[in-house]
Formats: sequence, structure tokens, C-alpha cells
Amino acid sequence: MVVGFTKETIGTALNLVKAVVPARPTNPLYAYIYLEGTGDDLVVRAASAEVDAEVRIPAPGLEFSPLLVPPAFIRAVEAASGPKVHLAAEEGRIVVSSGTWEAAVNTAESEGFPTWPDKEGGTKATIGVKELLRALGAVRYAASKDAWRSVFRGIVLEFVEGGLRAVASDGYRMAIYDTGIAVPLAGQILLPVSGADEAVRLLKEARGEATLTLHGSFITLTANTGEFEASLVVRLLEGEYPDYRRVIPTEFPTTVVLHAEELAAAVRRVSALSSPKDHRVDIIFDGESRLATLFTEGDYGRSADAVRAGVDGLTLRQAYDYRYLLDAIEPVEGEVVLRISGPATPTLIEPADGGGYKAVVVPLRV
Amino acid sequence: MVVGFTKETIGTALNLVKAVVPARPTNPLYAYIYLEGTGDDLVVRAASAEVDAEVRIPAPGLEFSPLLVPPAFIRAVEAASGPKVHLAAEEGRIVVSSGTWEAAVNTAESEGFPTWPDKEGGTKATIGVKELLRALGAVRYAASKDAWRSVFRGIVLEFVEGGLRAVASDGYRMAIYDTGIAVPLAGQILLPVSGADEAVRLLKEARGEATLTLHGSFITLTANTGEFEASLVVRLLEGEYPDYRRVIPTEFPTTVVLHAEELAAAVRRVSALSSPKDHRVDIIFDGESRLATLFTEGDYGRSADAVRAGVDGLTLRQAYDYRYLLDAIEPVEGEVVLRISGPATPTLIEPADGGGYKAVVVPLRV
Repeated sequence: MVVGFTKETIGTALNLVKAVVPARPTNPLYAYIYLEGTGDDLVVRAASAEVDAEVRIPAPGLEFSPLLVPPAFIRAVEAASGPKVHLAAEEGRIVVSSGTWEAAVNTAESEGFPTWPDKEGGTKATIGVKELLRALGAVRYAASKDAWRSVFRGIVLEFVEGGLRAVASDGYRMAIYDTGIAVPLAGQILLPVSGADEAVRLLKEARGEATLTLHGSFITLTANTGEFEASLVVRLLEGEYPDYRRVIPTEFPTTVVLHAEELAAAVRRVSALSSPKDHRVDIIFDGESRLATLFTEGDYGRSADAVRAGVDGLTLRQAYDYRYLLDAIEPVEGEVVLRISGPATPTLIEPADGGGYKAVVVPLRV
Repeated sequence: MVVGFTKETIGTALNLVKAVVPARPTNPLYAYIYLEGTGDDLVVRAASAEVDAEVRIPAPGLEFSPLLVPPAFIRAVEAASGPKVHLAAEEGRIVVSSGTWEAAVNTAESEGFPTWPDKEGGTKATIGVKELLRALGAVRYAASKDAWRSVFRGIVLEFVEGGLRAVASDGYRMAIYDTGIAVPLAGQILLPVSGADEAVRLLKEARGEATLTLHGSFITLTANTGEFEASLVVRLLEGEYPDYRRVIPTEFPTTVVLHAEELAAAVRRVSALSSPKDHRVDIIFDGESRLATLFTEGDYGRSADAVRAGVDGLTLRQAYDYRYLLDAIEPVEGEVVLRISGPATPTLIEPADGGGYKAVVVPLRV
């Protein structure tokens, strides 16, 4: 039986799956793509050590037993010219065709390929696709790429009383996002950043509600694009996340309100001459002139700029790693508030109009 | 004296110069940018082992002795916010400013930095910027990245009777472009691809006529963008280029006319399943069905497609490295002619409507 798909739908679906295939698979089966025709859907899966992905594209009548194909299958579908791509399973091959073009991809036995968790098990919660995307997107930057403590290579999802919260940190800065949406789960889980990135990719294509299912050592995420259903299995990180609440300052001798875009642009301008050793930018927040004055100085010279700032409290001179400051401001639109606890203690950064996002940046020791 | 520049002009000019700065300079001075205020122009230069670049931006009144600045100078100018960037030389610093922002870049002595050749020397020829750009752009792909013969890492400029010709080859394929424009020079020169790439970058910004000046072991190229003058000094490659005319076939049992875009799209489609070892695509050119039928077969499966083809002569089956075929067709718009001399001898590829471009591709031995 030959079944047709619109190229856009199958292309989007395969893109989600493809991203999971590891460049250097630890298990040789991870180099393959799993295919199955259930009679209702075409099921496509990829697996890795940290995250598995599945898409189910409606394909009534397409029925064949599970099998594996090389990633060349995806390249073949992507090469299709027409708006429609046809698929058929015949004699140990998957045949992809479109117009005059045809590709017959060799297949292998699916035995040993990771199975998909039972849909019935686990503890379920639902949350809007957009809110979960915003939460993961807002904190992702603060997770560590190469931390001495592997928990910092994860993103915390915490089911607190106020609702679902996301937290990430590398020990020098931290980002928090409160969705304000209550979910019927308790405690904390730790997603590896690879799984969070995959989730972001999936959620960007999805709409409506996403379902999170907790299964002890892993979590599944399922959402629908309108054209097909996509799911992930993310293996959770182990280890205890430090008590991040401890580092959020609570007393602020100085509070500064600035335009986020203006501040970020000025930081970028002066950063061209900051020292490549510590990426330092100094800022004087001055209540009298109502200016934030930025300075950098390095081996190549020095630079300065000033932006409008509403300063409430003591005039303070702070030094930051400009990259951390830019990352922290980036998710904020409009006015940003810098709540400064002092030159050697963390600064709290929030949008002036609230919105669930918070960043903590530790100033440079000078 | 402070002189203002529009950010776009100085940005475009510095971009041309910046591209020359080597990532790992063999001479420590090559890590710097040369600046000079002549009273009429701001002169900016960068140098490397293969190519030096200079821009002269009108700046009446800006007068300071030659000095060197680190590439952070370029980053600083790029960071400027306003439409105008101001420049001044003061006390061992170059001060760049725009609006409230200011950067003071440290300078060093210019002694030892490569000097610029005398404008009066050499043998001169002029050619339209567009034609020279087309010639270099059309043949560039065929030059070798890592050839056993270093001459293949160069692009030949030949001053033949019919006009200026560009040639590049890696020993397996060749591209030729005849401008048809007579230039008052004789013989052959060999540009390193780095110099040719820099020339392409410069010519894309320029208009009108370009001036080539031959100085024995190097060539200068000068053109104007309307806003500033830009020049290159390109050190020529030494060594004898093989007689490329020898490999252009002259007898063709089969001539095929195809739509270049259609052929390229079909090659791309079937290539997804070609063998990663030899990238082979087989094509049967059949005069009776008026079709070119493409096949690939590799470890992952096989693929086939067909495109319309006007075949004049014997039905032939040819095998090519699909990457070479794509590269050769790429510069052709509309109809392309494949003049096939046989399955083991070179194929000549030309636009059906002439236009100066020719490619030679050696088929795979099967």
C-alpha cells in the first residue's frame, strides 16, 4: 500500500526526530531511525543516551512491522521535489517517491531498539505549549556547558505551590521562570539540557496543551502540531540540586530602572574594548544625573557610554562579566529593574512589569 | 581634528580590510590594522602572507602619521550605534565616537608593516568590475583545496587574443571563463585562491572599471565603490600550470541539451542514496525516449529519477561524481549542453546560449 504525505508535514516531523540522532552513537542502533506502519499512523523514532523522540503521522492503511532505516531515509524524503511524498514498504525496503523520482531505502531488523514507555503509566500533568516553551526558553542560557557539578548541566522543573517553575544556573548566574500555572505534581526534576533543547524544538512546532508524564527516572512530553503527534522520552539527571533560593538576595540598597534594549545596546558597544580575560564592564548607577555610565578598559584601549536610568537609593559602582549581563537582560522586553544588593553580592534582574522571569548575576570581584 | 563618517561606508570599508587579517599571523605585525590620515583620506590597511588590502575613505582634514591599531578598532567601529561615526587621533590613541559612546583604542608604531607598491609602476589594464567578478566567480569552485600540485590551488588569469580568460582545475575537473574583453597584457598569471576570494569580496562592493597592475611577482587590483577606493596586493603563485587545453575534448559522439535547474535538482534528489565512498551517479542519455535517467546505489539503498533531455547521437551511460556535476552546472542558467566524448574521457559542459563559461568533468572509472 502506498500512502501520500504533504512534504511539509513529513519534513517537519522528520526534522524533530533527526535532531535526536547522536553524531557519535554510544549504541550502534542509535544511528538508525525506527519506522512502523500501525494501520493508522506512520511512527518514526530516534533514540540517544539522553533523549528519544517519536512522531506519529496519520497514515490510514499504511501497515508494516517495525524496522530500522539509516538516516539516509530522512535525506531521501528531504530531497523530494513535489508537494506530496509517497511511502510504501516492500520486500525489505522502504520506497519513497515523488513525481518521477524514487528512492528504495534498505531496512534492518528493529530488535534491540529502545521501546516506548507504556502510555498508561506514570503521573500526568498538562500545561499550555506556549507557557512551557517560554519557561524553558527563558532559563536555558544560564545552564552550564561544562560544570564541575553535573547538576548544573540540567534545568530544574519544580512543581511549587504557585505553579510550575523552571530554574537554571552555572554557579555564577541563575535564571528562574514562574509560569504561575498549577500542575498536579510535586517536587523537583532535573532535565538534561539536551532534553530541554529537544523539548523546545518540539514545542515550537506544537499548539494547545502539552502533556508531561513522570515515570520515576524519566519523563515523557507529548504535544500535537495539528498535523501529527510528537513525543519525547527524556532521561532525568540524578543528583541533588543546591538550594538556589539561598542565593536570591532580599535587601537592596539601590534599585535601578532602565530600558532593557538601551542597556543591552550600550553593554554591547563598550564590550568591544573590554578585557578578553574577564570580560569586565563597570557601571556607575547615579541617582543625581539619572544615568548609568558604563566603562571598559583592556589591553586594546578603553570605552565608555551612558544610558538613562531611574536610580532609587545609593550611588553604586558595580563590575560584571558583560556576557552574563547581556544574557540576563536578553529575555526582558521594555523596562528592566536591577535590584542591587551591593558590589560583592548578587544582583537581581527582573522585567519592570513582572511576568515570571528573574535572573541573578554575581558581580565580578574587583 | 574630528572627522565624521557614515557608519555604512566605514563599516563596508573595514569589512573588506578585516577579511585579510590572518587567524594565525606568521608575522606578528599582520595581527594589526594600519591607519593613516593623509589630510585627504583615511587609509586603512591589513596584510597577510598572500594578500594585502587597502581602503582610502575621503576624510578631508584628517591628518595623522601612520600607526597600527589592534583589530579591536574594527569591532569598536562596528559597535557604533548612530548613523555617523567620528574619528580623531590624539596622544597615542584613536578615538572613535558616536552619540554618548566613545572608545579610545591604543596604537603602536607602524614601522615594519608592509608598504604599498608605488602607484606609478607596473603594467596596467582595465576591465569592467562586473566582468572580472563573473570570471572569478564562475571558475573559483574548480580550484583545489589540497592538491598535490600547488599550482592547482591557484586561479589562472590568461591574457589571450580573444581577451581575458580565467581557468581553475583540481586535476579531475576544470572551469574556464572567457570574458571576451581584450586587455593590453600578455601571458599567464596564477592568483592564489585566497587572493581571488578577496578580489571577489572587493569587486562585489565596487562599480565601474577595475584596474589590474602587473608588477612581476605580484598584482594589484584597484576599484571604487562610489564611497571609497579599495585595492589589493596579491602575491602570485609560482610554478608552471599544465597545458589545460590538452584535456578539452574536441569530438563528441553524443550531445545532450537539458534544463540546468531540472538536471541539478534531479542530481541532488538521487544523491541522497549515492555511495558515500565515490559519490557516484549514473546517467543514461537516451535519444529515443528523450530522457536522461539518473541512478544511484549505495549501502543504504538506491534511487532513480529522469529529466527531459534532447539527445543528439549515441545512447550513452556515463558515471560521474555527483558533486563535480553539480558544481559544473551551478553557474549555468537556462539550458545546459553536455558534450560527451565517451564514458572514460572528459565531458564538456557549457550554457546552450554560450556566454564564456565552460566546464570539463572527468567521468568516474567504472
